[in-house]
Amino acid sequence: MTTLNPRASPATNPARRAGGTTAHLSSERSLPAHDVKNLFVVDGSPFTTFPEKNPTLTIMALSVRAARYISSEIRKGSLYNLKVMNRQIVLAARPVGFPKESDFQLVETPVPSPGPGEFLVRGKYLSVDPYMRPRIAGGKSYARGVEVGDVMVGGVVGEVIESKNADYAPGEIVEGLLGWRQYVVSNGEGVRKVDSALAPISTALGVLGMPGASAYFGLLEVGKPQAGETVVVSGAAGAVGSIAGQIAKLKGCRVVGIAGSDEKVRHLTEELGFDAAFNYKTTPNYHRKLMALCPSGIDVYFDNVGGEITDAVIRHINVRARLVICGQISQYNLEKPEMGPRWLWSLIVKQARAEGFLVFQFADRYREALRDLAGWLKEGKLKYRENIVEGMENAPRAFIGMLKGENIGKQLVKISND
Amino acid sequence: MTTLNPRASPATNPARRAGGTTAHLSSERSLPAHDVKNLFVVDGSPFTTFPEKNPTLTIMALSVRAARYISSEIRKGSLYNLKVMNRQIVLAARPVGFPKESDFQLVETPVPSPGPGEFLVRGKYLSVDPYMRPRIAGGKSYARGVEVGDVMVGGVVGEVIESKNADYAPGEIVEGLLGWRQYVVSNGEGVRKVDSALAPISTALGVLGMPGASAYFGLLEVGKPQAGETVVVSGAAGAVGSIAGQIAKLKGCRVVGIAGSDEKVRHLTEELGFDAAFNYKTTPNYHRKLMALCPSGIDVYFDNVGGEITDAVIRHINVRARLVICGQISQYNLEKPEMGPRWLWSLIVKQARAEGFLVFQFADRYREALRDLAGWLKEGKLKYRENIVEGMENAPRAFIGMLKGENIGKQLVKISND
Repeated sequence: MTTLNPRASPATNPARRAGGTTAHLSSERSLPAHDVKNLFVVDGSPFTTFPEKNPTLTIMALSVRAARYISSEIRKGSLYNLKVMNRQIVLAARPVGFPKESDFQLVETPVPSPGPGEFLVRGKYLSVDPYMRPRIAGGKSYARGVEVGDVMVGGVVGEVIESKNADYAPGEIVEGLLGWRQYVVSNGEGVRKVDSALAPISTALGVLGMPGASAYFGLLEVGKPQAGETVVVSGAAGAVGSIAGQIAKLKGCRVVGIAGSDEKVRHLTEELGFDAAFNYKTTPNYHRKLMALCPSGIDVYFDNVGGEITDAVIRHINVRARLVICGQISQYNLEKPEMGPRWLWSLIVKQARAEGFLVFQFADRYREALRDLAGWLKEGKLKYRENIVEGMENAPRAFIGMLKGENIGKQLVKISND
Repeated sequence: MTTLNPRASPATNPARRAGGTTAHLSSERSLPAHDVKNLFVVDGSPFTTFPEKNPTLTIMALSVRAARYISSEIRKGSLYNLKVMNRQIVLAARPVGFPKESDFQLVETPVPSPGPGEFLVRGKYLSVDPYMRPRIAGGKSYARGVEVGDVMVGGVVGEVIESKNADYAPGEIVEGLLGWRQYVVSNGEGVRKVDSALAPISTALGVLGMPGASAYFGLLEVGKPQAGETVVVSGAAGAVGSIAGQIAKLKGCRVVGIAGSDEKVRHLTEELGFDAAFNYKTTPNYHRKLMALCPSGIDVYFDNVGGEITDAVIRHINVRARLVICGQISQYNLEKPEMGPRWLWSLIVKQARAEGFLVFQFADRYREALRDLAGWLKEGKLKYRENIVEGMENAPRAFIGMLKGENIGKQLVKISND
């Protein structure tokens, strides 16, 4: 016999108060997830109701507190066969051109249990990033692609809620490529601990995470800017571009940003300190605009977009210029590969270099990047902006919006309410 | 009154014998060059006859011995107002597409006299190289272009025949970008001395000159091949490619050449030791051919040609591949710039680098390159082939032939007969 005694309304639910527990539960046998029809919210998360004719229950998207309680009750043997459901987004179809929401599907499966050496993470924020688009395209790439039916790849920051790994204690905040899901079991591989005292933990997916490290290593290690040089950043208002441009300013460069709206251009020049920026969507001739904004030519190009913008930039590179190829977002959603002018001759004439990189090349130096980035944040020398969408179910829309350039700064999805 | 007493026939001319002098000359006044109509050959070079009604003469394309004699006689005051003519090739028109012979013109001007600190060089071999094509195209490039009416740019190896510079003695062999002309005055800038004991002096324009140094630094400094890696060379049978491929072999790499004839392919694999090569003109699918010949992918690409060959190579690059962009000969003669697939994404996926270079980046290290190249030559580890055309007047044809890939190895023009 199962007893679930949640308070009826989330508004009055005492589990929102500190110290309260959410529910008293016991169960005799589990039910398939599809038997569970009725949901209500406890502690900001949906719970199943007590199923009248079935003596078990399924609990979905628990709050951390409820999850911990239930988890400990299960361990004690006072709860068994309890199913906590895990909301996740899987790839439903390979996108053709721009991804559609129907290319993704919300799927619920039981929350996994950590085995020996493992721990369970409950995600708080999910990152949507441009690199995910090529990963779902089905072609060969640097990492295993996401197959139809697979959980979407993606960085998540969350809390350890149960652990059978001595290095990770419940309550610790971790970040890693854990996928578009609320709960995930990890053995610690590819997961790092996040210092929540340093900055809001969401920054572990942005300025103090992969995008920040991409900007840091891409600009400094691949681009190697020198004070006084001119640095052009495309996709300049995005999570990576906005940091790359600011680091270039910190290094004494003249920084010119290219972005896709007047609001972004204002953000770059008025808030982030770029020397100049332009809206490529309303600029008829990139070549002339670059000539005007980069009178001494271009020494470093931090490229997030590719395509015609990059073609135009290459016409203005200086001798020994460095083209840092970080992303090519203009190309990711094309149904047919685009042709462009050949420009290798320019590399010869300018004795210049184009170099692609992946941030994990620098994995053994992340600490250095995070130290510097966090230091600049504290000193107020580095600014960041986040654009946060709520709810796992809105992750596909957030991803598509990011690909369309709707966000300024880092696009995140909040996947739990605490 | 002028007296010229040459022997009538070159076959019987005693000036061909050691110690003989060619002519006894004196003059009262000079004549414009166009007044001189009649030529005959002394010591393998054309001489003017004695003009019946004009008491002066012009001498063209003197042998070194005759030139030295006349030069010394002029200095002594026993000859004056003597004109030695300098045959040179000037750009007559900007080529459209493939250059035509009519884009060039043979012009004769008086041989210049060295001023203080200068010396006079009589050229022996002239180099025709791919880089000259962009230099006459009229666009912006890394060096001042050749304007219509200018003497063609080009490397020359020759002998110092008169010197007012203490560092250069008559008889010394020098090499430099002296232009398509038989005589040139230099102050030593950009000129280097050639050790004629090391190898035939023509190699100063090939394996022991700019092409050899391009192969050496491009491959080793830009490409940085490691033993066991796969190196692909395009334009592999040319002056630079054939050396680059052999150096890669010396460094323990698997080397695959791409060239434009079956004869070249045989030369690469049977004489130069390339592991494999293919004729791109008879290969319908470069991609499949590269897959077959480079089963472990491509680590270093030494590119002399660009275009579709390079597109295909890029599909096969390995992680951390280096694309050494040395030349783009497939693009130089296009009337309209060609479009090609965009491939910067491949650089990201492969964390790869494309780098253009000009050999003069490494000017302060030429000695090192020449030491190694000469050492390998002596040890028989490095082979070279020269294709020599005779006569300054044939330089345009040799240049055009080289652009069409008619030569194997280094294309030279012999511009004097001794």
